[in-house]
Amino acid sequence: MREVFRNELDDLATQLVEMSTRVSEAIRLANQALRSNDLELAEQVIEADIKIDSLQHVLDQQAAEILALQAPVAADLRAVIGALRMSASLERMGDLARHIAQQVRIRYPESAIPEHFTHTFVRMGESAEKIAEATRELLSHPGLEMVPTINAIDEELDELHLSVFSKIAEAPQGSLAPHHIADVTLLSRYFERFGDHAVSVSQKVEYLLTGNWEPHLSKK
Amino acid sequence: MREVFRNELDDLATQLVEMSTRVSEAIRLANQALRSNDLELAEQVIEADIKIDSLQHVLDQQAAEILALQAPVAADLRAVIGALRMSASLERMGDLARHIAQQVRIRYPESAIPEHFTHTFVRMGESAEKIAEATRELLSHPGLEMVPTINAIDEELDELHLSVFSKIAEAPQGSLAPHHIADVTLLSRYFERFGDHAVSVSQKVEYLLTGNWEPHLSKK
Repeated sequence: MREVFRNELDDLATQLVEMSTRVSEAIRLANQALRSNDLELAEQVIEADIKIDSLQHVLDQQAAEILALQAPVAADLRAVIGALRMSASLERMGDLARHIAQQVRIRYPESAIPEHFTHTFVRMGESAEKIAEATRELLSHPGLEMVPTINAIDEELDELHLSVFSKIAEAPQGSLAPHHIADVTLLSRYFERFGDHAVSVSQKVEYLLTGNWEPHLSKK
Repeated sequence: MREVFRNELDDLATQLVEMSTRVSEAIRLANQALRSNDLELAEQVIEADIKIDSLQHVLDQQAAEILALQAPVAADLRAVIGALRMSASLERMGDLARHIAQQVRIRYPESAIPEHFTHTFVRMGESAEKIAEATRELLSHPGLEMVPTINAIDEELDELHLSVFSKIAEAPQGSLAPHHIADVTLLSRYFERFGDHAVSVSQKVEYLLTGNWEPHLSKK
């Protein structure tokens, strides 16, 4: 019985890795679609998000079954609750990659990124890909080393997000089309939230490894 | 023992009502701060969000204890998992009310809403207050009657959100300051997400009452 239970917990962990791998792929392709204004690729990202949603659904059902049938306690219980929470964060990261792709589709054939913002969004895209990869790595090999890396990349994203508003405010009136300002505001918000959810996953892993909830509160 | 358990489940339900009451108060005051450009009131909303966060923290700890000590199954297990999920949604609704208040603070003494958008945001504010009240009512007296009401108000919010982008696109170039376009884009997104989280809570209640996960998937 214990072995069955361990296998079930391992299975949850494997599914989290699977979700994070797909999230990492989704943000990479969404960025590529955004940079090269590639409608077909954007459609692919939008379509692929259905799979991430269904992975969450399966994982959550299995976690509920483990709770019902195994009645785990202590560290095992924390692992199952943690898996439920991490799957929710990963699902949202998938949604945000999809939102970025949808922004490409909405604005097509025009580019969603006005020229003045190209460099900023290349950097945001790179940071988002790095944080997604770090999240996948963290879930593949749980340990505390990745936590500060993820926090540092999230700070990059926060700074880039703020820089978008400075750029908007500093642009000479009339130099940016109104719909472009709305586009970059939304895109920037999506990237910033993408980072927040990665931090949220890393806080759960930290909690599972240390039993300490505080980082979750202190990061507010 | 069973009676202790029932009391513990009732206690989770009471705490969800408490959270939703505070969320409802937060969005009401955030709207008032936004409409009347009231910095002091905005600060109050920002400050009060700490309490909502700590209510979530307490509720989640208690839910974890119930899982560990009572090992609930079937409908009781669903109720505990549902409470964990609903507390996460309510906490996000509190965050979004805080973000609206923060937008007032960032732009003060200027108003965060340019004149052209006053009517739209009055309506968004009203819809957000209605959906928060409906969520409170749903959690106070769980039943399926409130679910279509919440979906309908969420659709109002989605339509208003889209109308903000039409207004932005239609505005004569140069008639809206760039930072105002960024402000209304973010504010509108916050209201739209506020509605999404209310729908998410109502889907959990629906799931608890019917055992049917499908509405969660079909609403994507």
